[in-house]
Amino acid sequence: MAKLWGGRFKQKTDRMVEQLGESVSFDARLAPWDIRASIAHARMLGACGIVSKRESQSIVQGLEAIARAAATGKIRWKRELEDIHTNIEAELVRRIGDAGKKLHTARSRNDQIATDLRLWARDQMTAILNRLHDLQTALADFAEEHLEVILPGFTHLQHAQPVLLAHHILAYVEMSQRDEERFSQLRTRANVLPLGSAALAGTPHPIDRAMVAKELGFDSVSANSMDAVSDRDYLIEFCANAALAMMHLSRLCEELILWSSQEFGFIEIGDAFTTGSSIMPQKKNPDVAELVRGKTGRVYGDLMALLTLMKGLPLTYNRDLQEDKERVFDASDTLQLCLAVFTRMIPAIRVNREILQIALRKGFMEATDLADYLAAKGMPFRAAHELVGNIVVYCIQNKRDLISLTLNELQRYSPLFAADVHHALAPKTMVGRRDHPGGTSPKQVKLALQKVRRRLGHSAY
Amino acid sequence: MAKLWGGRFKQKTDRMVEQLGESVSFDARLAPWDIRASIAHARMLGACGIVSKRESQSIVQGLEAIARAAATGKIRWKRELEDIHTNIEAELVRRIGDAGKKLHTARSRNDQIATDLRLWARDQMTAILNRLHDLQTALADFAEEHLEVILPGFTHLQHAQPVLLAHHILAYVEMSQRDEERFSQLRTRANVLPLGSAALAGTPHPIDRAMVAKELGFDSVSANSMDAVSDRDYLIEFCANAALAMMHLSRLCEELILWSSQEFGFIEIGDAFTTGSSIMPQKKNPDVAELVRGKTGRVYGDLMALLTLMKGLPLTYNRDLQEDKERVFDASDTLQLCLAVFTRMIPAIRVNREILQIALRKGFMEATDLADYLAAKGMPFRAAHELVGNIVVYCIQNKRDLISLTLNELQRYSPLFAADVHHALAPKTMVGRRDHPGGTSPKQVKLALQKVRRRLGHSAY
Amino acid sequence: MAKLWGGRFKQKTDRMVEQLGESVSFDARLAPWDIRASIAHARMLGACGIVSKRESQSIVQGLEAIARAAATGKIRWKRELEDIHTNIEAELVRRIGDAGKKLHTARSRNDQIATDLRLWARDQMTAILNRLHDLQTALADFAEEHLEVILPGFTHLQHAQPVLLAHHILAYVEMSQRDEERFSQLRTRANVLPLGSAALAGTPHPIDRAMVAKELGFDSVSANSMDAVSDRDYLIEFCANAALAMMHLSRLCEELILWSSQEFGFIEIGDAFTTGSSIMPQKKNPDVAELVRGKTGRVYGDLMALLTLMKGLPLTYNRDLQEDKERVFDASDTLQLCLAVFTRMIPAIRVNREILQIALRKGFMEATDLADYLAAKGMPFRAAHELVGNIVVYCIQNKRDLISLTLNELQRYSPLFAADVHHALAPKTMVGRRDHPGGTSPKQVKLALQKVRRRLGHSAY
Amino acid sequence: MAKLWGGRFKQKTDRMVEQLGESVSFDARLAPWDIRASIAHARMLGACGIVSKRESQSIVQGLEAIARAAATGKIRWKRELEDIHTNIEAELVRRIGDAGKKLHTARSRNDQIATDLRLWARDQMTAILNRLHDLQTALADFAEEHLEVILPGFTHLQHAQPVLLAHHILAYVEMSQRDEERFSQLRTRANVLPLGSAALAGTPHPIDRAMVAKELGFDSVSANSMDAVSDRDYLIEFCANAALAMMHLSRLCEELILWSSQEFGFIEIGDAFTTGSSIMPQKKNPDVAELVRGKTGRVYGDLMALLTLMKGLPLTYNRDLQEDKERVFDASDTLQLCLAVFTRMIPAIRVNREILQIALRKGFMEATDLADYLAAKGMPFRAAHELVGNIVVYCIQNKRDLISLTLNELQRYSPLFAADVHHALAPKTMVGRRDHPGGTSPKQVKLALQKVRRRLGHSAY
Repeated sequence: MAKLWGGRFKQKTDRMVEQLGESVSFDARLAPWDIRASIAHARMLGACGIVSKRESQSIVQGLEAIARAAATGKIRWKRELEDIHTNIEAELVRRIGDAGKKLHTARSRNDQIATDLRLWARDQMTAILNRLHDLQTALADFAEEHLEVILPGFTHLQHAQPVLLAHHILAYVEMSQRDEERFSQLRTRANVLPLGSAALAGTPHPIDRAMVAKELGFDSVSANSMDAVSDRDYLIEFCANAALAMMHLSRLCEELILWSSQEFGFIEIGDAFTTGSSIMPQKKNPDVAELVRGKTGRVYGDLMALLTLMKGLPLTYNRDLQEDKERVFDASDTLQLCLAVFTRMIPAIRVNREILQIALRKGFMEATDLADYLAAKGMPFRAAHELVGNIVVYCIQNKRDLISLTLNELQRYSPLFAADVHHALAPKTMVGRRDHPGGTSPKQVKLALQKVRRRLGHSAY
Repeated sequence: MAKLWGGRFKQKTDRMVEQLGESVSFDARLAPWDIRASIAHARMLGACGIVSKRESQSIVQGLEAIARAAATGKIRWKRELEDIHTNIEAELVRRIGDAGKKLHTARSRNDQIATDLRLWARDQMTAILNRLHDLQTALADFAEEHLEVILPGFTHLQHAQPVLLAHHILAYVEMSQRDEERFSQLRTRANVLPLGSAALAGTPHPIDRAMVAKELGFDSVSANSMDAVSDRDYLIEFCANAALAMMHLSRLCEELILWSSQEFGFIEIGDAFTTGSSIMPQKKNPDVAELVRGKTGRVYGDLMALLTLMKGLPLTYNRDLQEDKERVFDASDTLQLCLAVFTRMIPAIRVNREILQIALRKGFMEATDLADYLAAKGMPFRAAHELVGNIVVYCIQNKRDLISLTLNELQRYSPLFAADVHHALAPKTMVGRRDHPGGTSPKQVKLALQKVRRRLGHSAY
Repeated sequence: MAKLWGGRFKQKTDRMVEQLGESVSFDARLAPWDIRASIAHARMLGACGIVSKRESQSIVQGLEAIARAAATGKIRWKRELEDIHTNIEAELVRRIGDAGKKLHTARSRNDQIATDLRLWARDQMTAILNRLHDLQTALADFAEEHLEVILPGFTHLQHAQPVLLAHHILAYVEMSQRDEERFSQLRTRANVLPLGSAALAGTPHPIDRAMVAKELGFDSVSANSMDAVSDRDYLIEFCANAALAMMHLSRLCEELILWSSQEFGFIEIGDAFTTGSSIMPQKKNPDVAELVRGKTGRVYGDLMALLTLMKGLPLTYNRDLQEDKERVFDASDTLQLCLAVFTRMIPAIRVNREILQIALRKGFMEATDLADYLAAKGMPFRAAHELVGNIVVYCIQNKRDLISLTLNELQRYSPLFAADVHHALAPKTMVGRRDHPGGTSPKQVKLALQKVRRRLGHSAY
Repeated sequence: MAKLWGGRFKQKTDRMVEQLGESVSFDARLAPWDIRASIAHARMLGACGIVSKRESQSIVQGLEAIARAAATGKIRWKRELEDIHTNIEAELVRRIGDAGKKLHTARSRNDQIATDLRLWARDQMTAILNRLHDLQTALADFAEEHLEVILPGFTHLQHAQPVLLAHHILAYVEMSQRDEERFSQLRTRANVLPLGSAALAGTPHPIDRAMVAKELGFDSVSANSMDAVSDRDYLIEFCANAALAMMHLSRLCEELILWSSQEFGFIEIGDAFTTGSSIMPQKKNPDVAELVRGKTGRVYGDLMALLTLMKGLPLTYNRDLQEDKERVFDASDTLQLCLAVFTRMIPAIRVNREILQIALRKGFMEATDLADYLAAKGMPFRAAHELVGNIVVYCIQNKRDLISLTLNELQRYSPLFAADVHHALAPKTMVGRRDHPGGTSPKQVKLALQKVRRRLGHSAY
């Protein structure tokens, strides 16, 4: 079968232009969605009398057969046929003859690819939503198993105040939950049928767009044909959502890498999720976390590529748009793989409780509570803050911990200190006192965990 | 007033570090929101007995006085006090004495700035939603005033098929409507109170977060203190939404620039929205469209800056986060200005109807309809397409228009051509035949416009 | 052969981690450079007595055989062996036995991949330099063939002043020449041997790095092993240079698309470099220019990906770095393909001289020269500028060209106008008067072209 | 003074367009360079007889007076005059009358701003080169003062092999040296005079561009006027170089932050370069490193903004280009401040030698040398690697260090172990054995330091 548009052309396409312009090497993966959309289109053509019932039926059967053959790898797509649409149509004509040529009535490749991409993106988003859900479950399980573990909470990578490990982990559940909300809203926003827009202006054929939308599960039909064929917002938003989700993972990666270091030693990641060195026999590297952190840049780049792509493009379809596919495929594949591997890795993390207990003594993390202790007894917070700062300096100069200071020593700084001060500075006490919604007390964290479980139990994609 | 954290420090901060670290030169604009949040916080402190009622009242009155003074420019913020929070607190202490020092009880600058930014962002989003609404109204008005105007519809910047100018303009209303939906969903998603998270873990004071949330109009309180102080998703999403909105404007810019050129001549933009040249007296340049197109890059850059900023940051607050403000301020200011200026410019665009009529004859835009004509008479579309391609070549070689071909000439190519063919190829006919939802027929475009009007009538921010 | 680092590991790597971590699916293309570097390394190991001469020889012969087999596709690389280095080493051991295991003495995969990438990048830069050279030649040829053609010069996409088409085209030669200079300087800067840095600290073996550098054509050896294994500056700079080069092409793309439009009609691009539409038989789309313009975003994204990747990475090697390869491969392939296809397309562009002549009359491009005319006769330029502005308004209101105004009419505005004014306003005169280095006069453009030819004649890569 | 281009305009510019279009709020900083270029231009106009000697002299004197007045803040630039060029010209006319209006003869704002920006960029690059030089000196000083200090060298943030701290620090000198080379080459490449290109095509006046170039210190005049007014390569390259330099700093930031943590404790940064917390009295945060790391994103964003800006712009000048300034100003200011503050901070870093000595015992860093030890005795490296992996597992299971294993224990794994093995595993021995160019032995590091000193001694900007 020749090119779909040979008519007015007298010279053959340059060989290198074919290389530049072909997309079947990467859009072949759209075949299932392309066929599904074509079947719905063919049924509608038949129902509306644009092609005969028999032709419609023959096309549908031909496409179904192609779908089966393609799924089992029995069709070799041809680069010289440019794209997957042309390949499938050529295969259809080969199988059912002239009726196959009527499939393209009342549509253009412009609305066809827009439809394929929306169907594909919808399915990917469903997969991503499920993977976000699984990751949250893995994180919640991990939090639940470590409910009693306290670790230093950091600001500026300095010890700040003790927190529950479960509280720390649930922070990532919150992030992931926002990712879920974004992808879920986008899935709805993008669920609009562009087919019927034809090249840019609609078609003179008496089509029934609502019928096609219903068969393909779209919530509505696009309101403007010119917008429909040139809109790629949903792909950019897809990449932006993926970039945010990867950013969240990159933060967790950074922490897992830090926590696995000889210096922190907070955790050990299981063998199945670490690798060694070809030259250093002792190495056990947190490669998964490093690779995922590295892949963050990749998805940022995909987003930037699509934003640049669309900048300043006049309406309607421009061939530049062909460049949308590889980038969004990459963002989707990357995110899905990273989410899946993280979900599997979380349960393989072993927490070194003894090291955490030692860590809690470092960094004067009791200082805030000491200042709060004074503030609670009436000293203005700012004054208490400064006074405790001086006590910390005293400890550093004398190589002392805050917890080891006697009441006598403390009272040299203020008569407000009383016998209850040492209990107030135990990590458990400090954690337990932050007992309001969002705080790190065991009670609040358990409540938060229950809420997470409830939500995870209800959501389904 | 000294630094808020001088206690354990023995050396003064390096002069250049102060320059690097100060933020009051740009965060001073947050003063109204900072004060508003502090007032709510102070009221809650009083209501919960954390400070006395009298102290609470005194703080609130002090802050209200500062707000009034700041609004009229009567306070000079000091760079040596680092940021707007410290400046306001210092001013408060100067005015009401020691009670002022108690304002900072049960909070940290970490949850304070997070609260300020969310309040600020919420107000900016409301402003943006209103500006998007105004732009859509301007575009709808413009569409309505040009309902009968037909222009060439383009794909690949080549004449493709005739479309209604109103249809073309309504494509931008669709884009803008998606921008609106994104900002509206984000405004809801971000409307969560972080205050009460303190530095990272919550506070031991018996605070009432729900009370503060209610007073400040937040829908809920943050579920996790560690997430709350280190989450900047909403600012990144803000920039991503702004980037998309700017991208849409950049496409309209490109078209206005093209259409204003001597070659297109489709429109003339009013003097108030164009500028001249210092050396070329004849120039009338579409500077607004160029500037806005150029500013697209700026907002893309803001987005990339924030994504890079957050990559790989461990929990919780890190000073890197200070860099979030200038970028999101820039994205917000840029988008708001560009939307506003576009809304004013649209009515100043004059359409050159005569030039458009001439343009419609160029580019063989009747070709699709000619092929559809044949397809409607039973020829497979692919065959019709190729046949019309040959007719086009004939026209080019003989310098003819399609519309000028006689029935005889056409019938040389196919006996399916009949007397009705010339009527079928008039621009009005062609446009009118694309008469399904989303199509460019006057009937459908009027319906689409009514729908837009209804939606615009109902939405309010 | 097992993993290179199995020793201390008790559990098998997770299946999905293997998928995440494997690189042979994309780094297999480095095989020729990896083998070349290994041969040089093996020779050095033999020469320095680190392995025996016989072992060295056996390794070299084994590698040479592998290179030949790989070049003809006779080796199937295995994903389970992770990367191309391990694959090649496994194949070597399979072929020559235990001696093969000694190849990895005194090196690590960290310095090995750094060496491979520099060798690869050097060759790609040579190819790019040749393609930039070819493109410049094609542009210079095109300029030479159109030396007498005048077209409107644009600012703000408005007619500004007439220029020679050759002058316009030579602007792109200047851009391309800067691209060439950047890549050439980078090729030199990156031509430094990292091998010998081992994992990060160097090796205790008595290696001779200078010998390896010489055999591989490196100018020097890296001065610091820790920098050597973690430096990816040259890949980022490669992408930055590629981004600039693509940006230049995107500007030419934009112009070719504009010039091919029905409205401009300045050029026609040959059939071999345009494509048609599946639905619109008349279409002849400038797809090459659109695709290349679209690919600009892709390369920008590659750059952003690498910059993000490296942000905040501690020394030395981190697994994140594995992500460098696909992005730089993509940038290199994209740029090379785009340059090549442009070089072939330039000669296929036909200029519509008649249309250009008509275009020259539009837009009052004589205005500057009219002002200059007055300025030359003593009127301050600013006053002349304003006066000519008024004449232009008169022309617009009376639908007149500047050139058509009589001397009488002109003298109503100023007595300085004389009989020579009409000659002064002919496009040829206007172009000819800009007769200084860098100006658009035929004399200067010919000189510029000669200079370009001389430079192109001398440079070779 | 009115707008420079009022002539053909009948309506006033819209108020909001003025806000959008004005640049004097940020381009006022270009005043010194604008005036300098104007003085050179005026002298040339006089020398070439384009204006009279007296006019030329009067203009020069007027400009010099304006420069003095502006330097002392005595001139208030006006927003309604749009840009700094118009402001200065208006001020000139106010001071010297009609002669001032002749300054703009034979130039346009297009070549004027291009000249200003190149002059400005050249001076900024000189400043950056000096700051890079200073930073390298500070790093070299620090390395020299810690020549005997050994610390764990990391890969994957895991202990890998011991290295000299000086070696580690010199890795950053290498990076900085590449930054220097890039900026130095760019300073040369950009040192080309665009003035004389006028709006786009050159000027009919008999100008002497070489004279202007010489007076302003440019190496050459631009070869093509159309390229000259629309080229912004040097600003993009400036941002790309700045992005790389910031990336390098971000890596050092990350390490300083890690090393300052309670877990690492390798260093303490002086009070003058750290800050505290408003709520946690004990905190001493590495804010400088965090802020600089955060600012990396900002400069990446500036680069992306400029690349996006230029994508697809047709020749020649487009108003989009006005957006170049703020981004490159930001990149330049950010980089210069960060370099300066780092240079001051380096000497304020105190190294905790005792902690480093303890750290050296962790992580089995002797493993590679143990494998090398066996390899040196004839065991194939791969086999030695695996054997040592097993020894490491034995150590972990029995909570032993490698160094603590007796010869007996070792010989259970291989008879190749001999009495010299324990000496071979001392950190000093291990470091000392990596004794080739680029290696971490004290001898090589001293040689490297000498080389750095020599280079720093010779370079001057």
